[in-house]
Amino acid sequence: MAAELTAHELITQHRPTLDRALDAIRTRAYWSPHPEHPKAYGENGSLDAAAGKAAFDALLGTRMDLGQPGTDDWTGEELSPYGIELGISYPHADIDVLLPAMRAGQRAWRDAGAETRAVVCLEILKRISDRTHEFAHAVMHTSGQAFMMAFQAGGPHAQDRGLEAVAYAYAEQVRTPGTAEWTKPQGKRDPLALTKEFTPVPRGIALVIGCNTFPTWNGFPGLFASLATGNAVLVKPHPRAVLPLALTVRVARQVLAEAGFDPNLVALAAERPGEGIAKTLAVRPEIRIIDYTGSTAFGDWLEANARQAQVYTEKAGVNTVLVESTDSYKGMLSNLAFSLSLYSGQMCTTPQNLLIPRAGITTDEGPKSYDDVVADLARAVGGLLGDDARANGLLGAIVNPDVTARLEAATGLGEVALASREIVNPDFPKAVVRTPLIVKLDGAKPDAEAAYLSECFGPVSFAVAVDSAQDAVELLRRTVRDKGAMTVGAYTTSEEVERAVEEVCLEECAQLSLNLTGGVYVNQTAAFSDFHGSGGNPAANAALCDGAFVANRFRVVEVRREA
Amino acid sequence: MAAELTAHELITQHRPTLDRALDAIRTRAYWSPHPEHPKAYGENGSLDAAAGKAAFDALLGTRMDLGQPGTDDWTGEELSPYGIELGISYPHADIDVLLPAMRAGQRAWRDAGAETRAVVCLEILKRISDRTHEFAHAVMHTSGQAFMMAFQAGGPHAQDRGLEAVAYAYAEQVRTPGTAEWTKPQGKRDPLALTKEFTPVPRGIALVIGCNTFPTWNGFPGLFASLATGNAVLVKPHPRAVLPLALTVRVARQVLAEAGFDPNLVALAAERPGEGIAKTLAVRPEIRIIDYTGSTAFGDWLEANARQAQVYTEKAGVNTVLVESTDSYKGMLSNLAFSLSLYSGQMCTTPQNLLIPRAGITTDEGPKSYDDVVADLARAVGGLLGDDARANGLLGAIVNPDVTARLEAATGLGEVALASREIVNPDFPKAVVRTPLIVKLDGAKPDAEAAYLSECFGPVSFAVAVDSAQDAVELLRRTVRDKGAMTVGAYTTSEEVERAVEEVCLEECAQLSLNLTGGVYVNQTAAFSDFHGSGGNPAANAALCDGAFVANRFRVVEVRREA
Repeated sequence: MAAELTAHELITQHRPTLDRALDAIRTRAYWSPHPEHPKAYGENGSLDAAAGKAAFDALLGTRMDLGQPGTDDWTGEELSPYGIELGISYPHADIDVLLPAMRAGQRAWRDAGAETRAVVCLEILKRISDRTHEFAHAVMHTSGQAFMMAFQAGGPHAQDRGLEAVAYAYAEQVRTPGTAEWTKPQGKRDPLALTKEFTPVPRGIALVIGCNTFPTWNGFPGLFASLATGNAVLVKPHPRAVLPLALTVRVARQVLAEAGFDPNLVALAAERPGEGIAKTLAVRPEIRIIDYTGSTAFGDWLEANARQAQVYTEKAGVNTVLVESTDSYKGMLSNLAFSLSLYSGQMCTTPQNLLIPRAGITTDEGPKSYDDVVADLARAVGGLLGDDARANGLLGAIVNPDVTARLEAATGLGEVALASREIVNPDFPKAVVRTPLIVKLDGAKPDAEAAYLSECFGPVSFAVAVDSAQDAVELLRRTVRDKGAMTVGAYTTSEEVERAVEEVCLEECAQLSLNLTGGVYVNQTAAFSDFHGSGGNPAANAALCDGAFVANRFRVVEVRREA
Repeated sequence: MAAELTAHELITQHRPTLDRALDAIRTRAYWSPHPEHPKAYGENGSLDAAAGKAAFDALLGTRMDLGQPGTDDWTGEELSPYGIELGISYPHADIDVLLPAMRAGQRAWRDAGAETRAVVCLEILKRISDRTHEFAHAVMHTSGQAFMMAFQAGGPHAQDRGLEAVAYAYAEQVRTPGTAEWTKPQGKRDPLALTKEFTPVPRGIALVIGCNTFPTWNGFPGLFASLATGNAVLVKPHPRAVLPLALTVRVARQVLAEAGFDPNLVALAAERPGEGIAKTLAVRPEIRIIDYTGSTAFGDWLEANARQAQVYTEKAGVNTVLVESTDSYKGMLSNLAFSLSLYSGQMCTTPQNLLIPRAGITTDEGPKSYDDVVADLARAVGGLLGDDARANGLLGAIVNPDVTARLEAATGLGEVALASREIVNPDFPKAVVRTPLIVKLDGAKPDAEAAYLSECFGPVSFAVAVDSAQDAVELLRRTVRDKGAMTVGAYTTSEEVERAVEEVCLEECAQLSLNLTGGVYVNQTAAFSDFHGSGGNPAANAALCDGAFVANRFRVVEVRREA
């Protein structure tokens, strides 16, 4: 059967984009082929806002049949954080049937070569991009992100991260040529001459274990890195965030089939409530790569137990912002207020501990005491979220009741500088919406340390009073070393403090944002330019995206013959 | 204190070599800057044969003081496989003093940047190259390799592998630029603009656990990959092969000091007899990278227990040569005879199982029965080693009594097709020299399977009678999958068989040499062109050398500021 999409057509169409992506990861200048504005969609085959919403609505209450082999049942109990029951059921797999079926197409996928795999991945991303509006609703109603964030982070930004992974995967595979002629002089005798062939080969089946808060953004890098390097990919979504990844799998299967490959190279493993299939899948001998985003406990378990696989984990960390001095007090406060508020702090990159000298800080508005800074920050957050419509647009909904419980418990940890407020979402009255809580803690007190040295995921931050800038730097070091960090921020006008913070970040391996006062926030990273995580502290064993993220997903087999 | 060697001078001197190496790993054509011929040495500061021998002789019976901190004692009981007691003692380290001292210089080494680190590594390799004759004796009298092999494999070939690792490490670190300007358009508003700095940072202290048979060849890749990526490197040699790595550490410390860096960035950890310090060192929190060559049992232990470290292991495997048909029967026999004889089969790449159809094979000299092939191969080995001087030059000495014991036990495993012969080395009468043993086994018999599916390291090979080519291909698959393989060879004139063998190697991830009948042998790989191991089967979790071997030895830390 002839493929509907030939490799040649796909290369013609997507090679320029791949080349731009390859250039971007080398220069790390700004670039994205995926528009951020909702109005940019609706032409050239992409769904506009209304069509995307309609596509999402049409999914509700249906059975999503992906045509996967070994479907023994249907499962799905997604309840949107906005209060809607999605009512969608997904294939539940008989793993002993599905896994062998996923291997059947691997040889052809391997033989297709790195470039064809890359452009097939780009076609998948293009089709996903066309459905960005539909994905936005899917991400919103599983993660609880507000629509605009679900649109951008779950749409173009996630697609960027997927494309970035494809670019790294492609670059890594073509570092070794397909063939080489090797001729070694032997003095007066004839030279030794060999013809060598080098083939990138996959490790096997890759498992992507999705998370609840960023199903596409955190899921795409591993998925596309593994697929582009020749592996089959089994996607095990978070049971509360199946839809965005099920849509992804559906598109991938469709493109693979159209391009003449086995659609079973990508499959979904939805689970029954409480089934916990990640643990079973993770140690199957067929699974040779695992990408995971989630709790430290399960990430550590995977690293220790899934010994047959390459394991890439993003786990919990404790993110710090050191506040020592600033020449833009208002800019700092508004930047921090936004960082604390966005998606109610439910990002792995949201700052948790704000380290502030108890003697206060110097600013362009004169000296500010510790209490001033905390009160002003509380006011800035209050101002940012004073309007309920704006607040709803920034905060989104609380993703699950554990977050609410942690938030409520945190009020007892210290003096509350800013109380968390309940907000009603008029469009979704059942949504649980909460503004950030800021709690004052004394960094010198041992009972406070137990609080600020644990991750308190959600809209909770601690204004930690420290003895000095040096004390703050040492606490930063200890926090990153012992607890890990996805992000570090610092505000300082002192070269000495700046250098000390930089040195801690270099030594403890954490990504640092300095003196952000404008429209870039410590909790946001841009694909092709910023690394997400470092892979060098306890928060994550891999960074998005670099050579190490892709280089071990395939191996190179050499066949040599006398020339 | 001004450095004696400035970075500028080192770059001027070594950058062309680095560029050639970078080109070589891209094209994988033949290249080496390190002469293979002993007579090529003696000019431009290198030691000639006599000076190298004298330098080695001067080491015997001395204390090698490396000036390391925390030297609490002296140790060393090396006994050459050629019967000489080296009598050299090495520093025994108080690890609680040495490890902190090794960290002291890491910041300056990190700040020096990838290019300076690379050229310092190249200067170390240049100084080692100058002392190749001295190293040759050191490798010969620790590994038992014959002089010419110790010279080539322990000298230029090992230096090539070290340089290859430096090239990969450099290339990987400069994939991300040092700085980037990121400017994101915001429609009518001012663009967002950030200045970003990217710094490769080391993981910490790397541990190299050396082996007895190829102390430099197997030690240099990890050592130089870790050092070039900014890590300090602690070298724990095999207690019977300390000298080659101690000389390496001495040169490295000297060059580091002359270039203005802390010599403690490279240190030696020699152990007392039976001390087993590898196990202690491997789980120290300071140790973040481990390179190991040796037994499967300890390699597996490291992978399971040294969880704080990136662990690169080369363990045992069972190497297969499939003999199905040939158009150069004589060439095949002589090529195989050499492969089985070289260093008495004490290479991780030496073929062990020769799979031969019991119905015989077709050749350019007509059909040959299984018995013919085995007898002719035995004759070829006998012919190759018939002259004692030549035999000594090829075989070297048995590295330790375990090998002799295995060899003797193997005679009881089946019908002996070629008995192992003792050879006297007139220069070293105490050397234990043995020719290869070939044992016939019936592949269909379960008791035979226990023999041929275990690694029998040393001059032992099994001529395994199989039912058919297809049977051989399936046994090859099972062997690689279950036991791992560093090398696979095959002789066939059948396109179908060739394709089947290739497919097994691609699927099970093993490096394949096809129809070698000339001066290249299945057990030899050339740096810059051939991969040593695949990292994708149980024999090794890494290949020498590729992106994956270097990419996770460092991390990139980003510092971003508003522009």
